[in-house]
Amino acid sequence: MNSFGRKFRLSIFGESHGPAVGITIDGCPAGIALTGEDFNTDLERRKPGAAGTTPRQEEDKPQIISGVFNGHTTGAPLTLLFENNNTRSTDYEALKDTPRPGHADFVLHEKFKGFNDYRGGGHSSGRLTVALVAAGVVAKKVLQGITIKAKLVEAGGNKDIEAGISHAIEEQDSIGGIVACYVNGLPIGLGEPFFDSVESVISHIIFAIPAVKGIEFGSGFGAAKMKGSEHNDTIVDAKGTTATNYAGGVNGGISNGNELYFRVAVKPTSSTPKEQQTWNKKTEKVEAFIVKGRHDLCIALRVPVVVEAATAIALADLLLTQ
Amino acid sequence: MNSFGRKFRLSIFGESHGPAVGITIDGCPAGIALTGEDFNTDLERRKPGAAGTTPRQEEDKPQIISGVFNGHTTGAPLTLLFENNNTRSTDYEALKDTPRPGHADFVLHEKFKGFNDYRGGGHSSGRLTVALVAAGVVAKKVLQGITIKAKLVEAGGNKDIEAGISHAIEEQDSIGGIVACYVNGLPIGLGEPFFDSVESVISHIIFAIPAVKGIEFGSGFGAAKMKGSEHNDTIVDAKGTTATNYAGGVNGGISNGNELYFRVAVKPTSSTPKEQQTWNKKTEKVEAFIVKGRHDLCIALRVPVVVEAATAIALADLLLTQ
Amino acid sequence: MNSFGRKFRLSIFGESHGPAVGITIDGCPAGIALTGEDFNTDLERRKPGAAGTTPRQEEDKPQIISGVFNGHTTGAPLTLLFENNNTRSTDYEALKDTPRPGHADFVLHEKFKGFNDYRGGGHSSGRLTVALVAAGVVAKKVLQGITIKAKLVEAGGNKDIEAGISHAIEEQDSIGGIVACYVNGLPIGLGEPFFDSVESVISHIIFAIPAVKGIEFGSGFGAAKMKGSEHNDTIVDAKGTTATNYAGGVNGGISNGNELYFRVAVKPTSSTPKEQQTWNKKTEKVEAFIVKGRHDLCIALRVPVVVEAATAIALADLLLTQ
Amino acid sequence: MNSFGRKFRLSIFGESHGPAVGITIDGCPAGIALTGEDFNTDLERRKPGAAGTTPRQEEDKPQIISGVFNGHTTGAPLTLLFENNNTRSTDYEALKDTPRPGHADFVLHEKFKGFNDYRGGGHSSGRLTVALVAAGVVAKKVLQGITIKAKLVEAGGNKDIEAGISHAIEEQDSIGGIVACYVNGLPIGLGEPFFDSVESVISHIIFAIPAVKGIEFGSGFGAAKMKGSEHNDTIVDAKGTTATNYAGGVNGGISNGNELYFRVAVKPTSSTPKEQQTWNKKTEKVEAFIVKGRHDLCIALRVPVVVEAATAIALADLLLTQ
Repeated sequence: MNSFGRKFRLSIFGESHGPAVGITIDGCPAGIALTGEDFNTDLERRKPGAAGTTPRQEEDKPQIISGVFNGHTTGAPLTLLFENNNTRSTDYEALKDTPRPGHADFVLHEKFKGFNDYRGGGHSSGRLTVALVAAGVVAKKVLQGITIKAKLVEAGGNKDIEAGISHAIEEQDSIGGIVACYVNGLPIGLGEPFFDSVESVISHIIFAIPAVKGIEFGSGFGAAKMKGSEHNDTIVDAKGTTATNYAGGVNGGISNGNELYFRVAVKPTSSTPKEQQTWNKKTEKVEAFIVKGRHDLCIALRVPVVVEAATAIALADLLLTQ
Repeated sequence: MNSFGRKFRLSIFGESHGPAVGITIDGCPAGIALTGEDFNTDLERRKPGAAGTTPRQEEDKPQIISGVFNGHTTGAPLTLLFENNNTRSTDYEALKDTPRPGHADFVLHEKFKGFNDYRGGGHSSGRLTVALVAAGVVAKKVLQGITIKAKLVEAGGNKDIEAGISHAIEEQDSIGGIVACYVNGLPIGLGEPFFDSVESVISHIIFAIPAVKGIEFGSGFGAAKMKGSEHNDTIVDAKGTTATNYAGGVNGGISNGNELYFRVAVKPTSSTPKEQQTWNKKTEKVEAFIVKGRHDLCIALRVPVVVEAATAIALADLLLTQ
Repeated sequence: MNSFGRKFRLSIFGESHGPAVGITIDGCPAGIALTGEDFNTDLERRKPGAAGTTPRQEEDKPQIISGVFNGHTTGAPLTLLFENNNTRSTDYEALKDTPRPGHADFVLHEKFKGFNDYRGGGHSSGRLTVALVAAGVVAKKVLQGITIKAKLVEAGGNKDIEAGISHAIEEQDSIGGIVACYVNGLPIGLGEPFFDSVESVISHIIFAIPAVKGIEFGSGFGAAKMKGSEHNDTIVDAKGTTATNYAGGVNGGISNGNELYFRVAVKPTSSTPKEQQTWNKKTEKVEAFIVKGRHDLCIALRVPVVVEAATAIALADLLLTQ
Repeated sequence: MNSFGRKFRLSIFGESHGPAVGITIDGCPAGIALTGEDFNTDLERRKPGAAGTTPRQEEDKPQIISGVFNGHTTGAPLTLLFENNNTRSTDYEALKDTPRPGHADFVLHEKFKGFNDYRGGGHSSGRLTVALVAAGVVAKKVLQGITIKAKLVEAGGNKDIEAGISHAIEEQDSIGGIVACYVNGLPIGLGEPFFDSVESVISHIIFAIPAVKGIEFGSGFGAAKMKGSEHNDTIVDAKGTTATNYAGGVNGGISNGNELYFRVAVKPTSSTPKEQQTWNKKTEKVEAFIVKGRHDLCIALRVPVVVEAATAIALADLLLTQ
């Protein structure tokens, strides 16, 4: 469903080419100072504009519809709305017949019996992450004293990110990347046995971000090649500090007070400029086509702030649920 | 919380060294044929006994407490109970002072203010996966015509699994592994935008399995190194069959009718026979210690059936929620 | 929380004197024909204007923000927004010091530590029922073939409603009333044991309507005075038709195919024109005061369409959850 | 579904004539002292034995399966099991063909396509209230400093309860009654706008109790006949104490610190000793029949402790969710 969380509970709505996208946060504590300006930094980080991102200009100023009064949250549901101004729906007419490979066009048509808004991915568009980032801004305020930092650490298989991007621009083909996320200042004890481990709740929301294909915590897939005597993190003091951090800050699904650390795999943008093949429903043949519209060559560039937001949302919920 | 699912809803309970562990399934459709024997195959697969697994003998016959009448599910909650017969609580007295590295001893004590049942990991023990496997048996019956197959594909970094295990036995150190899971026969359209993507729901429950550190769908972390033109799976017919399957059977979070494929990273068993260091609460020093009790050298050997069960549960819920 | 339902899931937001109130419906099936005009009839019924209702003019045209495309629901979240145009916030400045008896002013201030938007009841205002009525219009479309009819059957203790209202206008004092609701065409089998009986789910949402103090199904409080041999409804055919309907269409919490029937008690509008007493926080004394603003003498007049909407929402959810 | 609550979350299971009934409480705080004896008083109150109750002897000693260690709750799920010892299934063979009027036999058969356990009402039996009462004992411990008292105030329309019962015994016909419930010591601020008002949450669980037909808070149905100037409770001090309590302790769905007060209508026991008529599925005719088995003439006698338990559960959840 389009809701997430038990206590800090999100409800997301909107389509890429509809009038607006938005999000409602239910369960946000009263008394948090909040103004429109608070959203600027993170929304700016999500915006396209850099090399390797789409030239589509998005306004991205949230309207605060409810839940804020006299500059503070009221405890009532907080709804944020982002109007969609700069959309070219005509680019998407062709999609009705030629489902784009790598996109959800085909499955959405099947699932919703042809009634889905197919323009620009509709409700499944990356456009909705603007609402997620805005909710993340509020979540970060709930997580006072806790810092969340995500960054792109690999682009197109290259640890030199700029080189990776340049290469993609040269080749005019989209690329993927890896985003690493670090959380410091977490209290011990977040996460709920049995089913709501820290990893369960974070991975749940991270996989809601379009283009994510994998997640690993701490040593992650590397752990599978290690020995127990290497992997176990020795506890060195009464606060639970560990000498190493292969666990990535979580034991038995519960935060242990050390740095929470995880990595996220992002696939190449499905909308590559390269010619591709797909099934044409009208001609009933596989045919070549070129994706129209303005797209990111490396969507992974814009993912870190979304990962931060998603992580903040998950942790705010775990903190308030405790 | 200790519940999972919206429609096929689990509630798990019990501790490793308490009287019993069990699970209640709420929302199981009426009319499914079910007897005690149906659980045998999967419970047998989870059992220790092979090289590299614990010699603790577990009975593992479920008592059907409710929800079955005249050999069929009734539509009322289905509760399964597993008595704990073969437990040696004395092995765990030392844990009160020396929290085992890699285990949840330390965080559970902090989270529950010292009231947690610390014996054998208590409620966070791998013992509870017996209940998960049993629920998986029921879930598989809900998923008629769908096959789920998980297997260990790497042990201790070795693709020759037996060699990996032999090496661990020689070295008397625990090892991790990688479990791959393949689902065939899924209808198009499972998964719910925005937050309940197939990957979100599966990863949520997979990370509830003790020792899991990572998950990747389809190309996974490999996707981060690919180009869009390589990665996109060309749709080749009206049913949505794709020429390749880098997506792993999911587009935009929704099943696309091709094989669902993912891989899970399992860390080395925390209870290695090797001597380790940890904080001693009484002496207030880091001290050497050796984990007592009977444990698996390679817990990953017993994980495939648990991954299958968790996957079946997640998919049954998505199918019934649709 | 501000959400209701499992499958047809509402999320409500907004304050009486903020920019807008609205509602998001998550889980509405795709393919339902829906236009702005569909809301007119029910929104008109909720509007003030009749004798005994407030002269505040509300626009009450929903903006469809998402979830509708080409005149049909898409299966994505459906968000409806109602702008608040005609608000006089100055009427409410006095409320900060003198919590109105019968209203939630005092408890909201305590619960939200003074951060709540107190103007016109804020998020707890009857204004939000405009969003509920709109969601009800969609719910009724989900309930094809099922008719829901609610009406005021008693005003100020008078079964002649007009006489009751006239009397209240004469006395310039607010009055309560009783709303009866009848549902026909329900299939057998709605309602989920143990906790989601038809009565549980309907009463849950009915008590979310401001001013409701009681609910009774079928014979209701009258049942307490009856004998078993009188009260039991004889089943007279294979379809489960009953000779009498003291049960009100529900047995063991599950719809039995006969008319679902219940009655709702509505208290007198708290904002009576009469002078009242309340605690003055500034003077720290009980003092006389008169409620300002434009209010309904008999709010019960506007409640039937809200009861219908709430009932439709509850039943749509039960129907889709089945 | 068979679960209730957000934070103090119940999951109920079992059938009247199966091996056991039980309940799991997820989210019970750690560190509450709890032994088997704590359940005795309330379970004793629920037991039959008095004039007007069934002679069926139930053991009603809970087995604590999980969640308690060293005499205290651990924070893990707390499961309580009650074995069913004294059941006469043969009494119910006839039910397959002659659905009892007033009971759920007919609707359960339809809903679960004939797979339901029909013996003694199966999962819909009043037997399950033994588990609810046990959960109530735990909930009351969560509500330290808060007292909940429910009592029968009317039986068969008679405020002299004993006379009401005697009359029923004489007539050999079952009767209903009214249960009043009073809660003192509640903090201000319980209840969550918009949908989880105190009344919403309490009525939700109260209507899960078999035989309940109505609920009213404070002035209840009487409010419909009152004037605003009479009904509004004047606030007389800074703590929110009111001069009268027509509100029944709740304003705008939120507890106001005064006594919470409500009344519950209980219908006559459906299993009256009198001869009745019902549809016979085999003969396809309406036929006379007499309910077999041992039943309560006035089930309302045993309801107060169940109402207390349900109320405690609802309030514990609201308190912990805050």
